[in-house]
Amino acid sequence: MTDRKRILTGIRPTGALHLGHYAGALENWVRLQHDYECYFLIADYQVSDYADDIPRVREAVWEVALDWLAVGLDPEGSAFVIESLVPEHAELATLLGWFLPVSMLERNPTLKAEMAAMENPEDGSTERKSVPVAFYTYPVMQVANILMPRAHLVPVGEDQLPHIELTRETARRFNRRFKEVFPEPEALVGRVPRLVGIDGSAKMSKSRGNTIDLKDDAETVARKVRAMYGGPPRAANEPGRCDDNPIFLYLRAFDPDTEGLAELEREYETRGVPNKVLKDRLTKVLNDLLDPFRERRAYYQAHMRLVRDALASGSERMRRIARETMDMVHDALDLNYLEKY
Amino acid sequence: MTDRKRILTGIRPTGALHLGHYAGALENWVRLQHDYECYFLIADYQVSDYADDIPRVREAVWEVALDWLAVGLDPEGSAFVIESLVPEHAELATLLGWFLPVSMLERNPTLKAEMAAMENPEDGSTERKSVPVAFYTYPVMQVANILMPRAHLVPVGEDQLPHIELTRETARRFNRRFKEVFPEPEALVGRVPRLVGIDGSAKMSKSRGNTIDLKDDAETVARKVRAMYGGPPRAANEPGRCDDNPIFLYLRAFDPDTEGLAELEREYETRGVPNKVLKDRLTKVLNDLLDPFRERRAYYQAHMRLVRDALASGSERMRRIARETMDMVHDALDLNYLEKY
Repeated sequence: MTDRKRILTGIRPTGALHLGHYAGALENWVRLQHDYECYFLIADYQVSDYADDIPRVREAVWEVALDWLAVGLDPEGSAFVIESLVPEHAELATLLGWFLPVSMLERNPTLKAEMAAMENPEDGSTERKSVPVAFYTYPVMQVANILMPRAHLVPVGEDQLPHIELTRETARRFNRRFKEVFPEPEALVGRVPRLVGIDGSAKMSKSRGNTIDLKDDAETVARKVRAMYGGPPRAANEPGRCDDNPIFLYLRAFDPDTEGLAELEREYETRGVPNKVLKDRLTKVLNDLLDPFRERRAYYQAHMRLVRDALASGSERMRRIARETMDMVHDALDLNYLEKY
Repeated sequence: MTDRKRILTGIRPTGALHLGHYAGALENWVRLQHDYECYFLIADYQVSDYADDIPRVREAVWEVALDWLAVGLDPEGSAFVIESLVPEHAELATLLGWFLPVSMLERNPTLKAEMAAMENPEDGSTERKSVPVAFYTYPVMQVANILMPRAHLVPVGEDQLPHIELTRETARRFNRRFKEVFPEPEALVGRVPRLVGIDGSAKMSKSRGNTIDLKDDAETVARKVRAMYGGPPRAANEPGRCDDNPIFLYLRAFDPDTEGLAELEREYETRGVPNKVLKDRLTKVLNDLLDPFRERRAYYQAHMRLVRDALASGSERMRRIARETMDMVHDALDLNYLEKY
């Protein structure tokens, strides 16, 4: 144990990670990993919506771990954790469930939306899907995930903010009722809270098929950028509004040459610049960003045993702090029977 | 591991045990303990309704263990388990929650009644209590409790039958969908499925204050029997119907002299017998039953370290079989990552 403050953050294993994850979260994780004691969690017990496609979950656990290594997270310094290897997560969630009213979960806008989507499926099927019990327990699992290492900071995507609020409220309730065990964690949203998809739609997301994945090769990136939505139709030399053109949103997110970009924006808004020019620039920017990721990914993909060991040792580290936390919780509730006699 | 079939059964720690527990369940447990591999569970993670009175839960864990030892359960042969010492229970419940629709829980009559009681409290308070998340998870915990040691037989009270049905359905679903892991457990209801309270009301229950506890001393038993409801008012030599007199229900449940009892019943229905005579007989019957229990209880109460060790070693035994079961479950779902590389 060090004196550094602790970070807990994580992701559900449902597929490879993309630029939206990077700009919204991973970039922050990489930056913070040396100043904090970090626990990066692969939440494989929160995938009840993929209960019919468990091979995908299984595969995605490795994809996520590879992507983390690729962007430069260091598994020696930080713990890569598989949730299911630490049964204490479910245990803490069970206990916290005593004190969390269902009504409090139902007030959470994310959950509300998810429940509505489940009851009125987008695919137009008339059959309402039955809500599984997991739907009520997974938000409590998220709370337990954060509280388990007694985290101080949670770098998350913007849509996770209500969950952090729920976690803070739970920590307050527990501490007030029993004993000061849990810090009230702060949320930290990434530099680009919500990256638009390459189709111009509101959010880059695997299920919309509008992503550029961190593991895409240079040619795939070039192809996806060529096919990218470039704002309303416009003649090549016609001026346009940068804010209407997703290509600029990407350049702003990833182009390190901010002066050059500012000049290009002025030019675009006054004399017009063909999308082809913008796209060529973006392709280069993205491939420059992704090249070192690809190199590291290739290395680890050739040495999967290292990935396995990172997950095994990180989960073991989490297990140790989890046992410590559960001891504190049992002490606080005075449910530590065996110490009595 | 032996070849014997396995029993899982248990009780929530909310107070000392009474004659209703004995005739409805414990008597069976004692009888079956040598023919089966038995796991007796103290379900201290299913007491969210006592979240405001955790000292009571803590105390009751020891009371229950003492009562078990008192009636003659053998902690060398059978495992006395504290649920909270085996975090895999919560883990398995979390996983099973993926596959259990909330609607299936809500069809369960016991749960339905409990939810109604929670929303319309008997005490007449106008404030509806908010249902805690635990309310949706505790039935899944019960399913997980039974499936954890892959139990074949579950000796339970009559009111638990719907939970056993839910467990069987869950086992079937899991086995069909993934792999044959869980036997479909059978329920076994005790000889006296429902013992009336000493006030004549439908059920002996701590919350109604109408119990004779296994740990009551001889004088307390005599006093409670004297105060017992003895059927509709009747002159001493007026005949009555045995079925209307709870004293006979108790004698039928506990009097080993069945011939003598049959004769007494005939006499009661033809010539009449004063309740005083019946009550004296019942007091003797009950104290004869409880005397050896009291003796054993006193011994263990003077040696609490033995009780502690029984709970510690039994929980450790459950932990071993729990890890085995979770490995089988992870194999069935193919979520055994670390074995891959």
